[in-house]
Amino acid sequence: MDERVREHAETLVDWSARIEAGDDVVVSVDEGAHDLAVAVARALGERGANVTTVYASEELQRAYLRAHDGEFDEDPGHELSLYENADSVLSLGGGRNTAGMADVPGERTQRYGRARQGIREARLDTDWVSTVHPTRSLAQQAGMAYAEYEEFVYEATLRDWESLAEEMDRLKGILDDGEEVRIVNEGTDLTLFIDGRTAVNSAASVAYDSHNLPSGEVFTAPYDTAGVVTFDVPMTIRGRDVRDVKLTFKDGVVVDWEAAQGEDVIDEIIQTDGGSRQLGELGIGMNRGIDRPTGRILFDEKMAGTVHLALGRAYDANLPEGESGTDSAVHVDLITDMTGDSRLEVDGEVIQRNGVFRWEESED
Amino acid sequence: MDERVREHAETLVDWSARIEAGDDVVVSVDEGAHDLAVAVARALGERGANVTTVYASEELQRAYLRAHDGEFDEDPGHELSLYENADSVLSLGGGRNTAGMADVPGERTQRYGRARQGIREARLDTDWVSTVHPTRSLAQQAGMAYAEYEEFVYEATLRDWESLAEEMDRLKGILDDGEEVRIVNEGTDLTLFIDGRTAVNSAASVAYDSHNLPSGEVFTAPYDTAGVVTFDVPMTIRGRDVRDVKLTFKDGVVVDWEAAQGEDVIDEIIQTDGGSRQLGELGIGMNRGIDRPTGRILFDEKMAGTVHLALGRAYDANLPEGESGTDSAVHVDLITDMTGDSRLEVDGEVIQRNGVFRWEESED
Repeated sequence: MDERVREHAETLVDWSARIEAGDDVVVSVDEGAHDLAVAVARALGERGANVTTVYASEELQRAYLRAHDGEFDEDPGHELSLYENADSVLSLGGGRNTAGMADVPGERTQRYGRARQGIREARLDTDWVSTVHPTRSLAQQAGMAYAEYEEFVYEATLRDWESLAEEMDRLKGILDDGEEVRIVNEGTDLTLFIDGRTAVNSAASVAYDSHNLPSGEVFTAPYDTAGVVTFDVPMTIRGRDVRDVKLTFKDGVVVDWEAAQGEDVIDEIIQTDGGSRQLGELGIGMNRGIDRPTGRILFDEKMAGTVHLALGRAYDANLPEGESGTDSAVHVDLITDMTGDSRLEVDGEVIQRNGVFRWEESED
Repeated sequence: MDERVREHAETLVDWSARIEAGDDVVVSVDEGAHDLAVAVARALGERGANVTTVYASEELQRAYLRAHDGEFDEDPGHELSLYENADSVLSLGGGRNTAGMADVPGERTQRYGRARQGIREARLDTDWVSTVHPTRSLAQQAGMAYAEYEEFVYEATLRDWESLAEEMDRLKGILDDGEEVRIVNEGTDLTLFIDGRTAVNSAASVAYDSHNLPSGEVFTAPYDTAGVVTFDVPMTIRGRDVRDVKLTFKDGVVVDWEAAQGEDVIDEIIQTDGGSRQLGELGIGMNRGIDRPTGRILFDEKMAGTVHLALGRAYDANLPEGESGTDSAVHVDLITDMTGDSRLEVDGEVIQRNGVFRWEESED
C-alpha cells in the first residue's frame, strides 16, 4: 500500500473524524476511491470502530435517476435509519468521470435531493467528513498529470494540522474582535462589516466544526458589504467556465456585475432569490500545500494567499446564537488571488500584504 | 450496455425479487459486479423502488478484519437498522479474486460472523436474492475463458423460469406424495425416506421461497437414509479439492466414508457434531442451462442430470410445521452425476433414467 494513502486514511480517521472504539461509521466510497477505502477500513479496524460501506457510484446514480419517473418517495426508511444511527460518515470522493451525471436532467436531481432532505440532515447531524482520493478523472479536471495530481492532493492533505490550527486561531481572534474588513487588490476595493460575527477556524476536523479534508481556511459572514471586487481565479460553476467576475456592492447588495466569461451563470445565481444578492461568507485561504487552482472548490478556496466570498447562504456557526443563515437556496464561492499588489485590513490595520500575513513577515 | 446484463438485472428485479414501487431495497455490490449493479439500478429506478447501495468489497473486509483485535461489537445499530427497515436485499456477487480473504484467520471471520448474527437474521427476514455477475476471477475458478464463462452464466440465468417452475412443480408433487426415494448409479445404491416431508420448488424467486438466481432444483429433507452413495462431481470445499467421496449410511447415519482426494475435509465435516453425520437435504438439479461443474455451488448443485445430498442442517421449509432443522452447524452439499447408467425411483417407480425424466421421454 502507498504510504501516503495509509497516512491519508489515518489523518481522516484520527485528526478529522476523531473515531473511537465502538463508533458506528458509514464509509461512502466513490467509484475511484477503492484504494483509500481499503486503507480507511484498516484504520477503522485498528480503532475498533464498526463499519458499513456505501457505494457512491455516479454511474449507478445516473442509471437510477434517468429511469425513475421523478416521483420520489420521501426519505426511504432503510437509508434514513442507517444515517440516524451512525456516529460518523466518511465520504471518500474520487469519481472516474466528472461529467458522469451530464445527461441527467437537473430538475430530476433537484427533486431527488428535495425528497431526501431528512436523509441529508441525518448525515449532517453525524460527525461527517468529506475527502478526496486522487483519480485520473480529477487530475484531468485540474489539468495535471496523474502522479503530479497525487503529489498535489497529498501536499494539501498531509499537513501539520495541529500547528496550522494554532496559526488559524490567531486569524480567527483578529476577525472575532474586528468590525470591518477591507480587501484591496487590482480591480478590488471592498469593505465588509463583521461586527458581532464569529469566525470558524476550519482545521479539517470535527473538533473544529470543520468537515473537509483538506481544509485550511478561516471564514466568517459579513452582515453588510460596500465597494467593488474582482475574482481573478478561474472557476467552473455549474459545469461552465467563469472568468474575472466583477461585483459592485451597495448597502450589502450586488447592484452591478459583469464577467469576462460565464456572465450568464452569474446572472442565474444573483437572480435566484433575495439572499443570493448578498454575501454569505468571507473566507481566507491558509493551506500552503495548495499552490494553484484545480477547478474543485474543496481545494481552491483553501489556497494560501487567496480570499473567497460566497453569494447566498451563510453558515449558522458564523451568526449570533439563534440566528440562521439559510435565507438563500444558493452558496456560490468566488476566489481572488491576493499574492499580487494587495492588502487585507481589519479595522484599518494591515493583517496581510501581497498574500503574506504580518506574523509571517516578522518570523522571517 | 450488454443486453444480457440488462436482462439479468430485470430477471433479478422482476422474477426473482418481485420488486414493486415504494420497496426499500438494499443492493450489495461485489468489487467486480459494477456493470450488473448499474443495470439493476436502472431497473429499480423504472419500478419506482428506493435504493441504498452497499459496497461488499472483500479487500476492504480483509483489511478491516486483519486490523481488528477480534472483540467485535454485537450487531452495530446503524447496519442492523438498515436491514431491519429493508424490504429486499439483492446481493450481486462477482469478486476479483476468489482467494481475496486467504490470509484472514478463520477464527477472526467466525467471531465477526457470530457478532453479527442479528444482522444476518434481519437480512434473511427480507425478500433477499443472491446472484452472480460473471468476472474474470470466477471464470478462472471455473477453468473457462472469460467470454465462455459469460455465456455459461447467462445460459444458466436467463431461462424461461415460468415454464421451468411448472416442470419442477410436477417433481415436487411426486416427492410430496412419495415415501421413499432410491438412487441407483455407479457406486451408488441409496434409499432415502421422505414420508411427511415437503419439497421446495426452487424456481429462483422469492414467490417460491427460493433465493438464488440462477436456481432450478427441487429439494426435500430425508428423515432416514440407508445404503451407499458415491459423489463423482469434482468440488472445492473449504478451499480444498474433493474427489469421489463415498459414504455408507445405516439407520440414517454415516457409518463409513472414504474419498479419492480431500478425505481430511470429509473427516472434519462428519465429525463436526451429531447432525453432521446425517443428511439434511436431497436435491435434484433441473437447470438445463448448467452443463458442467464450475467449482461454485450456486451453479453446480442446480445442474440438470445431477442429484446432490447435503450433510448437516435441513431447511425448515422441508420439515413438518413447527420442526426446525438447525441441529447441525454445517450444511455441505455433495453432487453425483446421473447422466450415466443410473436411475431415480420414488416408491419403486422410475422417475428419471440416465438423467432424463420420464416426462421428457414421453415428450420426444
